[in-house]
Amino acid sequence: MVNKNKNIAEDMYRWATDIFPICRSLSGSGVRDTLNYIKKLLPDLVIHEVVSGSKAFDWVVPDEWEITDAYISDEAGTVLVDFKQNNLHVVGYSEPVDIWMEKEELDKHLHSIPEQPEAIPYVTTYYKRDWGFCLTHKQRKALTSGKYHVVIKSNLKSGVLNYGELILKGKEDKEVLLSTYICHPSMANNEVSGPVVTTALVQLLQSLEERRYTYRIVFVPETIGSIIYLSKHSKEMREKTIAGFVVTCVGDDNNYSFLPSRKGDSLSDRIAQHVLNVEKIKYTHYSFLDRGSDERQYCSPLIDLPICSIMRSKYGTYPEYHTSLDDLSFISSSGLMGAYQVISSCLKALESNYYYKVTLPCEPQLGKRGLYPMLSTRNSGNEVSTMMDFLAYADGNIDLIDIANTIGSSYSICAEIASNLEKHGLLEKHTRQLNYIFRK
Amino acid sequence: MVNKNKNIAEDMYRWATDIFPICRSLSGSGVRDTLNYIKKLLPDLVIHEVVSGSKAFDWVVPDEWEITDAYISDEAGTVLVDFKQNNLHVVGYSEPVDIWMEKEELDKHLHSIPEQPEAIPYVTTYYKRDWGFCLTHKQRKALTSGKYHVVIKSNLKSGVLNYGELILKGKEDKEVLLSTYICHPSMANNEVSGPVVTTALVQLLQSLEERRYTYRIVFVPETIGSIIYLSKHSKEMREKTIAGFVVTCVGDDNNYSFLPSRKGDSLSDRIAQHVLNVEKIKYTHYSFLDRGSDERQYCSPLIDLPICSIMRSKYGTYPEYHTSLDDLSFISSSGLMGAYQVISSCLKALESNYYYKVTLPCEPQLGKRGLYPMLSTRNSGNEVSTMMDFLAYADGNIDLIDIANTIGSSYSICAEIASNLEKHGLLEKHTRQLNYIFRK
Amino acid sequence: MVNKNKNIAEDMYRWATDIFPICRSLSGSGVRDTLNYIKKLLPDLVIHEVVSGSKAFDWVVPDEWEITDAYISDEAGTVLVDFKQNNLHVVGYSEPVDIWMEKEELDKHLHSIPEQPEAIPYVTTYYKRDWGFCLTHKQRKALTSGKYHVVIKSNLKSGVLNYGELILKGKEDKEVLLSTYICHPSMANNEVSGPVVTTALVQLLQSLEERRYTYRIVFVPETIGSIIYLSKHSKEMREKTIAGFVVTCVGDDNNYSFLPSRKGDSLSDRIAQHVLNVEKIKYTHYSFLDRGSDERQYCSPLIDLPICSIMRSKYGTYPEYHTSLDDLSFISSSGLMGAYQVISSCLKALESNYYYKVTLPCEPQLGKRGLYPMLSTRNSGNEVSTMMDFLAYADGNIDLIDIANTIGSSYSICAEIASNLEKHGLLEKHTRQLNYIFRK
Repeated sequence: MVNKNKNIAEDMYRWATDIFPICRSLSGSGVRDTLNYIKKLLPDLVIHEVVSGSKAFDWVVPDEWEITDAYISDEAGTVLVDFKQNNLHVVGYSEPVDIWMEKEELDKHLHSIPEQPEAIPYVTTYYKRDWGFCLTHKQRKALTSGKYHVVIKSNLKSGVLNYGELILKGKEDKEVLLSTYICHPSMANNEVSGPVVTTALVQLLQSLEERRYTYRIVFVPETIGSIIYLSKHSKEMREKTIAGFVVTCVGDDNNYSFLPSRKGDSLSDRIAQHVLNVEKIKYTHYSFLDRGSDERQYCSPLIDLPICSIMRSKYGTYPEYHTSLDDLSFISSSGLMGAYQVISSCLKALESNYYYKVTLPCEPQLGKRGLYPMLSTRNSGNEVSTMMDFLAYADGNIDLIDIANTIGSSYSICAEIASNLEKHGLLEKHTRQLNYIFRK
Repeated sequence: MVNKNKNIAEDMYRWATDIFPICRSLSGSGVRDTLNYIKKLLPDLVIHEVVSGSKAFDWVVPDEWEITDAYISDEAGTVLVDFKQNNLHVVGYSEPVDIWMEKEELDKHLHSIPEQPEAIPYVTTYYKRDWGFCLTHKQRKALTSGKYHVVIKSNLKSGVLNYGELILKGKEDKEVLLSTYICHPSMANNEVSGPVVTTALVQLLQSLEERRYTYRIVFVPETIGSIIYLSKHSKEMREKTIAGFVVTCVGDDNNYSFLPSRKGDSLSDRIAQHVLNVEKIKYTHYSFLDRGSDERQYCSPLIDLPICSIMRSKYGTYPEYHTSLDDLSFISSSGLMGAYQVISSCLKALESNYYYKVTLPCEPQLGKRGLYPMLSTRNSGNEVSTMMDFLAYADGNIDLIDIANTIGSSYSICAEIASNLEKHGLLEKHTRQLNYIFRK
Repeated sequence: MVNKNKNIAEDMYRWATDIFPICRSLSGSGVRDTLNYIKKLLPDLVIHEVVSGSKAFDWVVPDEWEITDAYISDEAGTVLVDFKQNNLHVVGYSEPVDIWMEKEELDKHLHSIPEQPEAIPYVTTYYKRDWGFCLTHKQRKALTSGKYHVVIKSNLKSGVLNYGELILKGKEDKEVLLSTYICHPSMANNEVSGPVVTTALVQLLQSLEERRYTYRIVFVPETIGSIIYLSKHSKEMREKTIAGFVVTCVGDDNNYSFLPSRKGDSLSDRIAQHVLNVEKIKYTHYSFLDRGSDERQYCSPLIDLPICSIMRSKYGTYPEYHTSLDDLSFISSSGLMGAYQVISSCLKALESNYYYKVTLPCEPQLGKRGLYPMLSTRNSGNEVSTMMDFLAYADGNIDLIDIANTIGSSYSICAEIASNLEKHGLLEKHTRQLNYIFRK
């Protein structure tokens, strides 16, 4: 088990290393290369494409962006800023340019962060035709007066936008959503951690002998991708989805973070908090007002899905966020593994979360079933108290998670107890809440 | 605006000064003189009369009380206590008397406050035939043994009880109630502040270009007046009233006070607390158990209207209350203005408090509508986050006030945002909560 | 009254002293002797019997156990452990034995408590054929190597299990349950206190001129007894029971304890907490997870009765629990009386707990009914404020207890007020919550 986990942790970090250098954006070959990489790990992944100009609710699928090279060189021909060294150097969706300009003019197209002089910021211009370069503030300050040659070899033309989708059928029609994004260039926590942890989670789900729920897993460009996906599937998702997680920022070792769904009391929220609490994980509980990823779409009023997020260091809260400092050294195999373990515990908790109802009035006689110590002494009660507590609350109207919370136990212990009691005929399992009326 | 407010503040204090000297009681010329003064400011005010002996629920309209003079003089003919100097000197509803009596006998009819030797207390005997004088404890202690001539030139006879009523029609049939009282003699915070602030609020409501709600404003003698009014109008008021305020003790500069409705969670309560909080007003939150004015009738079980109060120093809580020390020096134009501003904010909040529902699934594309900065940088999100937060909660099931509370904003900012988004077709406005079912 | 209470307190302690020495167990003559003693005090008590082998839900009525003698003696014939000295010396339900054995072999059948060397522990083996002796650790340590003569003159054979039942009819069909147990040998707080306080409560209920509710009082062997009783009566009990208390551990002077029902918000729970609070009793509020007596059956999911417990020192929380140290010196007449008074207050509160609804809109005119001081001065309001507060909340939808809690008063003051107001025609009494619609 420890070895298996070590393998998973190392696999995830290796996959992260592999896809880190790819220059992703909303669309284009970067997204496709990333999806194709994942498809090698998850052969059932279906890669979809939507043509530029297609409508999705209030949005229009943008043109496809391709970039092959970009640089700024001085009059001596020295390349000062080079896309090939770091794909963050070019503002995402920059239009092509090949021009000589004075430093003063060029400066209007430059982005840097004075307080982080070593960091290249990440900037995009998806919905307005423009171009620009991002560079460290150190690089920027070194630019002297004079003329500069500015070249962006990019291409904005009608094409497609891609996303990946994988449906794992379960015994029940009800679904759990996992959503992650694949649209940022070379950044680690706030990009590659999401798809690699999601990939590992899918492998786990595929390995289950028995799968209760159906899992819908999507790898989408953030915002436009989830909007496109919802524009095609929201009706069935609204009918079927009982829980779900946006998987993002799951790579570093510094923190754990919880971002609730809009309403904050969904099954996803209850499961996530139960797992974080019983695993004694110290975490920051954010408000839905702090949201920033695709829960913005999944939880929007007319969609209203029960989606929350468990993260390591949340986007927007760490200085490396949206800069070149969010690189492979910011994440680690143990950071990825920590997130993987919490989210996989949530999935296990979901799978085991039935409504249980006792089959007999009053307490059962555990002794004759070998479930109770025969000799009653002052302390013998403690041994079976969790089992008795479970039975005391199993009225078919609160689920396993809420019983566990009420009796101060964990989903895993309760699942084991419930399974044992069910085998002895003392419990019956229901997928939905009952409002039974008992008549002897 | 500042000048306009200065004028309102000064107007209110001048009106207070004008009506302060009038000797009001439950009925009689004092009430009529006060109503006639207000009618000059609010020509649409209708002055009603109810004849003595009329029934109103459990009550009977008392005889009309008139008083022209009253004094206590000693054997030398020196007037020691004189109604003409302060109308609090006579117990309200005293029957006529003209008699010489020993000091010991007279003393049974005297009221003073040992702990406040300079204050004349305010005492009434509405429902039991009796008479008495109120005087400072200093005056009382100066009375020596001997005979005194006691004269009260009053008159208790069948007549009428008056109250004022003003209905301002709005676009909606639903009503907001403002109720204030006009039955105390010369006291300032606990009497004249109420009618003058209410008068200014009516002038504000009349000046609105568009008025959503219908406003029912009543100037009544406390208790018996509101009971009479409810005995005539409770059926329609119960059908129409969505909110309301008793306007009393709104003149001093010392405090702000909030007295909730009986149930404490009505729209009035939510609005009042929202306004007090977003305007960062330090206030004392009283319990409905501390009630003492006409909310006792409006919130009574079989009436059950959603009426609360925002006050400055609440009745019963300041030493000057119900004494001659609650005079024009106890209130001020700024004190009146503070209350006027909070209550008028509540009315504005009420007018803008719709249920909003987004028109589109997922987030709208704000950029193409000029509602979003085009270039996405690390911090650009902040500028529009309140707008996005508003959209995230606008599901037609929580009102503007609750959205504002949820997203940490104010009714006025949210009203502006909602109006803007509505213009762009991104929100629809509803007067009632929805429980929509979205089907794509 | 004080004398009467003194008598009750002394009666209870005397009864406790009388039944303390009886060797009770689940079944047998000890239970019958105890029930017969109580029947002398409560002639209406019906003593039922259920034959061994009868089924009750998941349980089977065990064989009847009789014991006449038991001892351990050494080779010199000295009796070292003697049942006649303390009936805790024999493990409950021990099978007969008459054998010589080595100390090492005997030791496997001995029970003592090293940390309490002076205490004989209480041990039973109801559902597994076995035998054993309990002794102080001091006694145990004094046993030297050698042979011992072990004798238990007991008898396990088909017989009956007994319990007592008493129904006190009230005006209403709705029932209140009092349940106590009679199955422990010589222990005081955790045995005899329960039946004696229950007996005194029944005498109180019998003495009431008018009884609103029907009372169902049961004296049962713990667990198996309540299960048997429920197997016969749960249908009607589920239909009729509105409240109830398990009466146990009600004899010492050290503490008060409250153990809620499973759901924690039943009428029993509200009443119990109201009484404990208004009588300013310091108590420990336990969780239902700390349960341990027959509420385990009464509150089990398919039974689901609203039963809680008010105790002195709760079972399992004091060192003397389930040992010979829980003897007559551990309880006292004042300890019993304290519990008696709190529980009898609960019963009085239950009897007076109607839903009241005012008969008139607005406040009534109390003055004309002699309910209000005629002269209104600054402070006269205080005298009638509790009455006015009661009227302000009496809308037919919250009960007397909740009104008392809301207005900061007690059930007894509110019951007096309500009775007075009802006499004056100002309130009407309902046994159930209303959801009236007022139309004038």
